[in-house]
Formats: sequence, structure tokens, C-alpha cells
Amino acid sequence: MVLLTLIKLAVFCFLRQVRERLKEDVEQMKLKNPNFSVLRLPTCFQILHSITEVNENSSVHGLIVQLPLDSVHEINTEKITNAVAPEKDVDGLTSINAGKLSRGDLGDCFIPCTPNGCMDAKRFLESHQAGKWNISYTALNLQKPVPSDIVISRSCAAKSIDSLAREVGLLSDEVELYGKTKAKVQLTIIKRLQSRPDGKYVVVTGITPTPLGEGKSTTTIGLAQAMGAHMKLNVFACVRQPSQGPTFGIKGGAAGGGYSQVIPMEEFNLHLTGDIHAITAANNLVAAAIDARIFHEATQSDKALYNRLVPLSGRERKFSPIQINRLKKLGIEKTEPSALTEEEINHFARLDIDPSSVTWQRVLDTNDRFLRKITIGQSPTEKGYTREAQFDITVASEIMAVLALTSSLEDMRQRLAKMVVATSRRGDPITTEDLGVSGALTVLMKDAIKPNLMQTLEGTPVFVHAGPFANIAHGNSSILADKIALKLVGPEGFVVTEAGFGADIGMEKFFNIKCRYSGLRPHVVVLVATIRALKMHGGGPTVSSPLLNSHFVAIGCSLKQIENAKHFGVPVVVAVNAFKTDTDAELDLVCTMAKAAGAFDAVRCSHWAEGGAGAVALGEAVQKASSAPSNFKFLYDLDLPIADKIRIIAQKIYGADDIELLAEAQHKVALYTKQGFANLPICMAKTHLSLSHEAEKKGVPKGFILPIRDIRASVGAGFLFPLVGTMPTIPGLPTRPCFYDIDLDPETEQVNGLF
Amino acid sequence: MVLLTLIKLAVFCFLRQVRERLKEDVEQMKLKNPNFSVLRLPTCFQILHSITEVNENSSVHGLIVQLPLDSVHEINTEKITNAVAPEKDVDGLTSINAGKLSRGDLGDCFIPCTPNGCMDAKRFLESHQAGKWNISYTALNLQKPVPSDIVISRSCAAKSIDSLAREVGLLSDEVELYGKTKAKVQLTIIKRLQSRPDGKYVVVTGITPTPLGEGKSTTTIGLAQAMGAHMKLNVFACVRQPSQGPTFGIKGGAAGGGYSQVIPMEEFNLHLTGDIHAITAANNLVAAAIDARIFHEATQSDKALYNRLVPLSGRERKFSPIQINRLKKLGIEKTEPSALTEEEINHFARLDIDPSSVTWQRVLDTNDRFLRKITIGQSPTEKGYTREAQFDITVASEIMAVLALTSSLEDMRQRLAKMVVATSRRGDPITTEDLGVSGALTVLMKDAIKPNLMQTLEGTPVFVHAGPFANIAHGNSSILADKIALKLVGPEGFVVTEAGFGADIGMEKFFNIKCRYSGLRPHVVVLVATIRALKMHGGGPTVSSPLLNSHFVAIGCSLKQIENAKHFGVPVVVAVNAFKTDTDAELDLVCTMAKAAGAFDAVRCSHWAEGGAGAVALGEAVQKASSAPSNFKFLYDLDLPIADKIRIIAQKIYGADDIELLAEAQHKVALYTKQGFANLPICMAKTHLSLSHEAEKKGVPKGFILPIRDIRASVGAGFLFPLVGTMPTIPGLPTRPCFYDIDLDPETEQVNGLF
Repeated sequence: MVLLTLIKLAVFCFLRQVRERLKEDVEQMKLKNPNFSVLRLPTCFQILHSITEVNENSSVHGLIVQLPLDSVHEINTEKITNAVAPEKDVDGLTSINAGKLSRGDLGDCFIPCTPNGCMDAKRFLESHQAGKWNISYTALNLQKPVPSDIVISRSCAAKSIDSLAREVGLLSDEVELYGKTKAKVQLTIIKRLQSRPDGKYVVVTGITPTPLGEGKSTTTIGLAQAMGAHMKLNVFACVRQPSQGPTFGIKGGAAGGGYSQVIPMEEFNLHLTGDIHAITAANNLVAAAIDARIFHEATQSDKALYNRLVPLSGRERKFSPIQINRLKKLGIEKTEPSALTEEEINHFARLDIDPSSVTWQRVLDTNDRFLRKITIGQSPTEKGYTREAQFDITVASEIMAVLALTSSLEDMRQRLAKMVVATSRRGDPITTEDLGVSGALTVLMKDAIKPNLMQTLEGTPVFVHAGPFANIAHGNSSILADKIALKLVGPEGFVVTEAGFGADIGMEKFFNIKCRYSGLRPHVVVLVATIRALKMHGGGPTVSSPLLNSHFVAIGCSLKQIENAKHFGVPVVVAVNAFKTDTDAELDLVCTMAKAAGAFDAVRCSHWAEGGAGAVALGEAVQKASSAPSNFKFLYDLDLPIADKIRIIAQKIYGADDIELLAEAQHKVALYTKQGFANLPICMAKTHLSLSHEAEKKGVPKGFILPIRDIRASVGAGFLFPLVGTMPTIPGLPTRPCFYDIDLDPETEQVNGLF
Repeated sequence: MVLLTLIKLAVFCFLRQVRERLKEDVEQMKLKNPNFSVLRLPTCFQILHSITEVNENSSVHGLIVQLPLDSVHEINTEKITNAVAPEKDVDGLTSINAGKLSRGDLGDCFIPCTPNGCMDAKRFLESHQAGKWNISYTALNLQKPVPSDIVISRSCAAKSIDSLAREVGLLSDEVELYGKTKAKVQLTIIKRLQSRPDGKYVVVTGITPTPLGEGKSTTTIGLAQAMGAHMKLNVFACVRQPSQGPTFGIKGGAAGGGYSQVIPMEEFNLHLTGDIHAITAANNLVAAAIDARIFHEATQSDKALYNRLVPLSGRERKFSPIQINRLKKLGIEKTEPSALTEEEINHFARLDIDPSSVTWQRVLDTNDRFLRKITIGQSPTEKGYTREAQFDITVASEIMAVLALTSSLEDMRQRLAKMVVATSRRGDPITTEDLGVSGALTVLMKDAIKPNLMQTLEGTPVFVHAGPFANIAHGNSSILADKIALKLVGPEGFVVTEAGFGADIGMEKFFNIKCRYSGLRPHVVVLVATIRALKMHGGGPTVSSPLLNSHFVAIGCSLKQIENAKHFGVPVVVAVNAFKTDTDAELDLVCTMAKAAGAFDAVRCSHWAEGGAGAVALGEAVQKASSAPSNFKFLYDLDLPIADKIRIIAQKIYGADDIELLAEAQHKVALYTKQGFANLPICMAKTHLSLSHEAEKKGVPKGFILPIRDIRASVGAGFLFPLVGTMPTIPGLPTRPCFYDIDLDPETEQVNGLF
């Protein structure tokens, strides 16, 4: 009955030449499937999104929506009518109705109509959900020898980013363009796609690297280009945003390399969409708030402080919601400012920060070595309250780690409030919420939380989002980007994400920290190895000497990292990243040994020189491995004592005999246990150049005790970070920084010299 | 002949039902005007832009372009063919031809075609050039009492910014969207519209203000709303981007106020499109480069320095272009690194900066008082090379002043290279070009140079661009935004731009610095006055007491500022910004006296409470004044000695008897004269709260000598700034910063508490 009414309605409205065909169509479909065209859309939100999908599908010329009467209160008919694009209504085909129907069960209907007839609504929506993308890939024009990265990047015309967004199934109201080549994706998409199954999750890690790096980023991009442009799979690459500081220092830009790059590389390496700048602003607001608060408390009585903190506004005094939170934390259940006792006023108004306990540092995204240690507060206006302090590079800020580990706006708000910045003289942790700054931080970070969409040289999609330090933080791109990408690629698709440093650091943290917070379980580990690194680990004198038997100890290093990956129960594919100096025999040897050591597969790849075409074998191995049995497990339980968790990582991953907690570390174990932070995961701050704590120990070091100098806490991000040795947290500029070569051509607006 | 061929061509291609009409049309037009449809488009650039205009005009279905053969080398036919949107070619109507025609004179033709026939190309292009905009204004729903700024801002739905961009005649390839409510405008538009006459140029300034401000920004926006939404004129408001620091300190956000605002105010007050962040990054790269260079020079021999600065790359050593510039500056005309003598190497490699002469400070966009004076370089890695330094707020950076005063990318590149950061021990000015960092600065600022498009509450366009300090810099929004706006509004339109602080500072600098560099000549000065400020200047005890005769001295203050404006030969309209506490008698009195003092007109306005409707009288007065005779002149010649220029400003504008140069200022006069900077304009750093140098002296102070404590140079921005008293260059946070009230609702994503 309902169906007939709707069909009549549709037929009545249709243009003459379409009408007959439509009728036949619907009749036929009805014969085949009595439930045809009936789709229940329980919420206004879902209807609006379905309409957006109709609006953006050029094959759909109109739609019919029937809302049941009893939903009218919840569902705004006018809003829904307005949501339909005008061009979908020109034929008079569209109708939005509300009213009780004879069969309440089939009350809410949604029928998209095309010039060829009605569509099955379910099928229409499904076609927008999990199917294969219709992507226009960008053909590479491979040159030999391979030109510089910037020359390659510039020679490829990037697609407009809104086209790419449409191609991967993003709706226009979910995308915020930032110019023509970058876009932010709104988090609302998570809700829209919540019922869609995730794609396969691939993490790229490496063997213990040389200082030059072994091409993890390049492999991540090359693998995505291979699986997308060559294997025609839905695939997303998820990478970290680079710090701008090194771009002008020693390193120059990086966005992969050769024919496996994110483009345009200038945009990737410079401000991007301002996420790191937002972190600088948020981080430094906290720092300014700490010192200003210490100063104001030192120079004012309880009464004066309280009168300023809870001022008379008009005729009344009121706590702000953030202040109510602090009262609750102190166990004061009052909401009326005049009701506080003197002691309560003292507790509320005085954070009583011990200046020597401040762990929060200022940050800049600049390689400024002269800010490594400074004295602040020397102006007479600060009345002698000087203090030693330091600047870190912005990506070392805990706020960057929060951005990378958060799962929603609400979760980010909570993490930003929990960050511990100092200890009070009474021994209590002082948080950003105590400082009253947590809401402002969330406001400053409200855009940074949205992942950034860019593209590879071959036109496949990339999320660039978050780039936390890989030693004092966990060095992985954002959970949100991975989650959204997994929904967008759908169950047959792949998401390739990169973990910083070697497998002993980046991958271990990927599993034990990132996956623990995200709840995601990877299907495949790709372990990138180079002959160059293996030679170095074997103590080979120069890179040009052949891989000898004496290097087997080095290959052992690669094998150890295979073992490390297998600790987590996930199949490992070894990608041997070929350089032109490598011989076939060398490459074959490594592949054979890797397979013997338990790798699911080991393949050579040449995506640097050949783009995605050079990583198809790798892509096929990854696809096969993703269907292999997997039995993911964490390395340690969170409930174990802090020292035990550190010991497990040191012994199982690094191959240490034991750990040694030095005095400061022991003190912190006691402090954090008392403060209730003992159950956080562990984020080791160790050199990435050796499996041990000594960078010069290559291969697979044995028989060492890992010394733990100190332990710090990133309570908002959610981990403890034991310090193994000293970690530089802001680089410096060399005598000839690479900015000497960087310039803009004012005529063409081209950036020169970035790489 | 040519015409006939073209018409034949067009007719041949046309769809059947259009063909006959087209033919008639063209024949008729030809009868009326033998030059019909012939438009000479001399450059490829212009043709491409004309095609973009055709692409974006839905009434045009195709076009015919005929290029002369001799232009083929210069004009890329393929590029032009590809520029035509596919939908303009579906009817087979479009044709792009190249070839020598019988009459070379009429060689390049351009005919847009519509379903109704051919269009006159000139008329078509003209219709895109100077006509009245077709803007959809946003109706206000005025509430009484006037709600808070954020409530009003949020209650108005912003138009999508790309619609607004189209409405004001921007082409889609000239606009870079930043989300849905902000966009950057590319500088290419200057070239496209270069032949279009400018609109009328209106500068908004104020009387000497109270610390609360008298509503200049609100008047700027209200006037634009009035002239746009109510008087239906083309009008652009140009305002400064606010610093983010104070947003979280004492001040909260600001984007006008009441019913005269830029929306969304959250976006306006937070990161906007990242321009200030780009300045922070650029400024601090210079700072890091200075200290790193001092350090590297102090710890290396000439030889070692030179080998690092000009390293062997492959088999050769090469100077970078920036290094060649430095060689030229030193008078060394060599380009071969091995050819330099030892002395030349010494001169080239050693900037020999005197650490005590460094005038370049680090910056942050945070109110961080503890960075007012610091000691840097205390880490052992800096080997004892400590130095006293300071942070300023980012908007005080010279780079911000450069952004505001530049006229093109090339000009910005040059200004960024000329900035003087220190003096060498030999007494030479050391520039950013000497440091090798000027190109990198340009790269960092390449997006910031593009003005940001936003909208008012009533849907009229606003450029938000640059926000230099109003004391140590010139406190005016950017020249580029004003210039682009003047082209966009066309000869019948208006651009309303705001100058910081009172007329004695902001307006004086607007004329003598901004107009001098822009070459623009304002048509009207709007001088904003409030009864509140006049009472204060008259020494009235409270704001609620009526304006008495005793306040006439105060009104004198307003009159003095009228006189100041008239110094420059531009008609003055006084806008009396009415508050609800003001009486009719008070408002009338001020208007009468202002007119008597030589104001072109003086009108009350109530745009805060009523939006544009409350400023229509002001708008009409401004429109009338813009046609009045104007005789613009600068206050001083640049060739005068530094002290004379300062004296002229002090005497004519402030009413001082004379100036007194203190010792440091005398030294700087000598130094800058020697260094060749004496012919720069003057940017006084004086309190804005009094016409004199003493903030507490209200009204029109007489008989004072203006003391000049010191003089500094912003050589890149292009002015000298004499310091009158001490200027705080980074604010602090109060005991209860306004961030206590700021939070984000994670459900609605609304920013709360920003005002």
C-alpha cells in the first residue's frame, strides 16, 4: 500500500519521457523484491546524510521521502526539505511528506530517482558505503636517473583535493578545503560510517636504521600507490606531519621520496593547515599560565587571589564550570562562592606550585639551540621571580601526543584537562584543569583534531595528521586519521600507516600504546630493511663493499625485529628497499633469511625509482598476509608495576638482560604510583640507532643492562616515559642551514630549494 | 570579413534551436555597431582570465576565440583550449582558432555565446568589471537589550564564503577556501583588474580614546553594513587581524561588536588562516639564525666557516644566489668560490655581529610576561655564549609591519631581505639577506600575503589582513587588502579601512606611512567620537554625569583631531557613536561643535544596537563627502633630517612646543643617517591615551616638550620609530585570565565564553 502510494506520487511528478520507464522499473523491482525502496532512516542525522549523498550523485535527479507522523517532533521536515539541492527538484519529482501511514512499520521511506527509474534506496546507499572507489589515478612519467624530489613533485599535477575527497566517498559537508591541495575532514564522518566494517590495517616499521633512515615513509607511500593505482584497491596512506624546524635546518623537506611522495611537497612541509602552529599556541598558553599563576600567588594574599579568581560581576559572584571542576577535585561540594571557609578558599585559590617541579616546557617549531636552557622572568615587572626553563620543539609537546592518541573531541577535551604540569608543594599533581586553561586549549585545538587529506604522486589519498616525537612520545600518526581511513576504504580496502623509528621503538609503541587506545588490531606488519643498514649493523667498512658472511650478524638484527613483530601475533612481510648499489645476490640473501626467520613473506621493492609499480609485489604479499591467521596480543598488562612493564620491553624487545632504575627513576616510580599513574602504558625514550641504549652498538647487542635515568609522565596523552640517556628536545641550526637554498620565485610563486 | 567568418563559424556549430536566433542577433548587433564582438586580448594571461569569466557565467554556453598567427608563439593555443570548461563545449559551439586573418588588426577575437545569441564581448567583460554587485544580504533580527557579541554572532548564519566571493566578482581560481567561512584571495587579481578604476577610499579613525576604546572597529563594520545592505553600494571593510594573545588574557575576542561584527567571531579571533602563526615561524627563524651564526663564528676559524658555508657538493663548490647577493653587497664581484682572497673570505664568512647590538627579538602570540627579559644560551652545548634577550608579542614583529606595507610578492621578498637585525663590530647594518634567511622567510610568508575574505553580520564582504602594533609599528591593516578591495568595489564603490588608536597616531601613520607606500589617496576621514571619551577628557567625575560646559575643553580634544585630519587636506566626517547613557542634548552639542570646527559633517550613529540601519546617516554623509573637493598632502618631506620630521609631527599633530632628543636618540640619528636610513618616514611610538607623551594628560595639552628616548629602525617595513617613553611589547596574564570562561561544547562544537 505504502509503496503504491509512493510510486503513484513519483509517477505523477515525473517528467513525461521518464515517467513510463520509471513505472515499469518500480513494478519490476517490486515483483523481484517486495521490500524494494523501503528504507528505514531512524534519525534526522541519517536522513540528512542520505540526502547529501543524493545531492552529490549526478545520476540521481530527485527523491521521495516519507516521514511517519510520530517522528515529526524529532525529525525536522523543513530542515530535510531544505537539505535537498535545488537541482534535484527541478523536475518536480522530489517530495518530502510527513504523516501517519497505514503501516507504521514502513513509515519512513527514502527513494532516490534517476532518469532511468527508481533506485532501490538500500542499494543506492550501499553503493556509497563500501564499494570500490572510482578514482582517476595520475600516471607517472618515470625518468632515469631519478630527478630530485621537488622536481618530481612539481612535475605531477595534483588533482583538486575536492575531487579526490569525492572519489573516496567523502561528502562535501564533511570536507573543509584549505586551498586547492589540502582539506580537513570533519569528525562527523565517524558517526555516518559507524556501521561500515573497517578495512585491513597495515603498519609499516623498519629494522634498526642508519642515521640516514631506510625509507619507511617512502615505502608507506609507495605501497599505497601500488595497492591503489596498480592493484585498484581502496587504499589510504596515513603519515605524520613533519616538524617545520628541521625543514630549514639540516634536513630539508620530506614527504616520502623519489616517485613515492605526498604532493605538493611544499605544502606538506610548510604550515600544512596549521595544526602544529595550533599546538605551539596551546602549549605556550599553558606555560604562560603556569608562570603567571606562580607569580600572582607569590604576590597576593588568599583573599586578594580569591577576589580576583571569583570576581563580583554585576551583583553576583560565580564559579566558572572549570572552577567547579577544581572544587570537586578538592572534595569541596559547594557552588556558592561566599560559602567557602577560609581553609577552602586557601586550597581553591592556591595551586601552590613548587617552581622546581614544573615539567611543562615552552615550545617553538624552530631549530633554536639557544633556547635549550634559559632563565625567564628577569624583567623588573616580574619582581625577581626568575626561574630556569627551556624550549622544546613543538612536536615534543604533550599536546601533540594527545592529538595523536585522541579518539574524539570529547576525549581530547578530557586529555587536555588531565595533563600534569607540575607538583604542588603538598605533593599533588597540578593539571591544566587546575590552571583553568583546559577549555581554551580545546578551543585552540578544535581544527587541528580534523585529519588533513592530501594525495600521493599517483593520485591515491593520504591522511597527514599529528607527528609526535618518537622518543619522548610515541612517534605515530593519529588514531583518528587511521580510524576514518579504515571506514572510508571499507572492508575490502587497506590502510597503510607508519610507525616512527625502528620496530623496537615505533612498532612496540604502535602496538602497546596506539592500538591499546584505539582498539584497532593490525592485520599485517611491513618491516622495511635496506642492504645499506644491514651492512652497517654488520660493521661493513663501506656501503659499497658486498654483503658478506660477516654481515650475517647484521641480518640477525633484521631477524630480531621480525621476532619483535611476531611477539604481537601479527604476520610480518619484509620489504627490502632496493638501492641501485645493491646486488641481486644481496637482495635474494636477505629475502631468503627473512622467510626462514618466520616472515610471512619477504620481497624486494623499488618504489623510489618506479613509484607504485615498484611495490606491486609488496602489495600482493601484504594482501595475502592480511588474510593469514593473526592472533594479536599486547606485550604487557597495564596492571603490572611500572618497573616490570619496563623490564618486559627491555628483555623481550631490546634483548637486555635486565634494567637498572637509577635514583631519580626510583623516586618517580614511587611518586607516580602514589599519584595513581602507575597503570599507564610505557613509552621508552631510547636511541633508535641501536637495539640497546648505546647508539654505537650495532647488530643484536647481548648481555647488557638497560639503565633508566628518570621517568616522566604524559598523563593527558596517557603514558609514562622512562628516559634512557639524555634526549635532545630542540635541534640547532648548522653553520650553513638549508635555508640558504630556499627561495620563492615571485613570478611563478614556485618554492625553490626545499629539497 | 573577419566578423562574417566568425559568425559563420558560430552559426555552423550552434544547436539547431539556437542557431537562427543567434544569426539574427549578430546581424542586428552588427547593424548597430560595426565593431561588435571584436575584442583585442593582447596577452595569454588576459585571455585565460576572460575564459574563466565565461566558464563561471552560467548564461554563457560557449565561446569563439580567434588568435592571430603571429601571436602563436606567445599565446599557447592548447592552454587556452584546455581552459574552456567542458560544459561550455557540449553544444559544439566553442572554437579556438589560430591563424593569420585578412585584417591583422582584428586578429584576436573573443565572442561569448549564449542560448539567446552572441554577446558583445566587451559588454560581457565589462559586466564583470565594474557593475553593481548582486549580493544577498543577511537580514538582522534585532533584539533589545542587545545580547552578547558571541550570541549575536552565532544567531546569524554566515553565507558560504565561496558564494560571497562570487558575489563580489572574484573568480573561483582566485579564491582559496579555508573551510566554509574564510578564504584567501590570490594576488593575481591585481593584474586582472589593473585597468579597472578604484573605488572611494574611506579611513576610520578616532579621537583620543579612553582605555576602553570608542568603537572604531564597530564603526568600520557598521558603516560597511550600512553602505552595503542598506544603501546597496559596493562596499568592502578592511580590518586588522587581532592578536590571539589578548583573546585569552584580559580582552576576550573582538570583531566589532553588537550588531556590527565580522562573523564568525570565533574564526576571526582564533587562528584565522594562520597568518600570525606564519609570522611567528618566520620571525623566530631569523632569531635562531642570528644566535646560531654568532655561535658558529665564535667557535670556528675563517677557513672552517667558509668550508661549511660553501661546501663541496659532488666535485664542485657553489655560492647560493643569496650568498652572491652578500658578495655583491661587500663589493666582491666574484662568483667562483675558489677565487676569493683570504680577506674576502673573512669578510664574506664573518658577519661579525656585535651581540649587544642585536635588535631582533623572538616572538610568541601569547601573553607571556615571563619572557619580557630572559637569558638564553645557558645549556652546556652553547659553550657559555649566553646573552640577554626578550620575546615580543608576534604582532610587534617587523615581519607583521612588512606584511601590512607590502605591495606584491616581489616587494615582500625585497623588504624581508632588507630587515636590519643587528650591527657588526665594524658598524655595518646586518640584514636578513646577510644571514641567508630572506628566501626562507618569503617561503614561510607566501600564503600570509594573500588577504582573508570574511563577512559582516549583514553579509557584506570584509578583508581581514595584517595587524601590526600601533605604537612600535604603524597599526594599520594591509595595503594589499585595501588595493584589491578598491578594484573589486569599482569606481562607484567604497572601501572602509581602519587606522589604529586615535587620529594623532593611527591616522597620522595611515597618511604618512601607509598612503606613502601604497600611493593611494583617501577621499574621506571618518572620526569616531563618544560622549564617554569626551567626558573623560574634560575631567568629568563619572560617565553618568551630563556633558557640561566644563567639558568644552574635552570637545576641544575632538576638535584638535578634526584639525589633525584637515592637515592632510581630506574632508572629515565625525561619527558620534551613541551609547544608551548619552542624552540627545549631548549628542547634538558635539555634532554642532564638530561642524563648526570644520568637519564636513557630523552625525550620530547607533550601529552597535541596530546594525547597518543605525549608520545609514553616516553612510550618506560619507558618500557626500567623497565627492567633495580634496587636496591631499603629506605632513612632511622624506628628505628632511630625522629630527625635523619628528618635530613636525610633535608640533602639528600633538601640539607640542618642541621635541628633545635624549642621548640614545641623538646617537641613533647619527647612526641611521650614516647607514643611509635617514630618509625613511617616521612611526612614533607614543601613548595613545593622550595627545602628549603622558597618558594622564587629557584634553588638549599645551606647552610641553616631547622627549625622544631612543629611535629604532624597521628598515624592511620602511620606517624609523622614535620611542617616547617605554612601550610594553608583550602583555601578561592577569590573575583570572578570560580563558577561565572559554570552552568548547564537544557535542555542538560551539565555542563558549569567547566574549
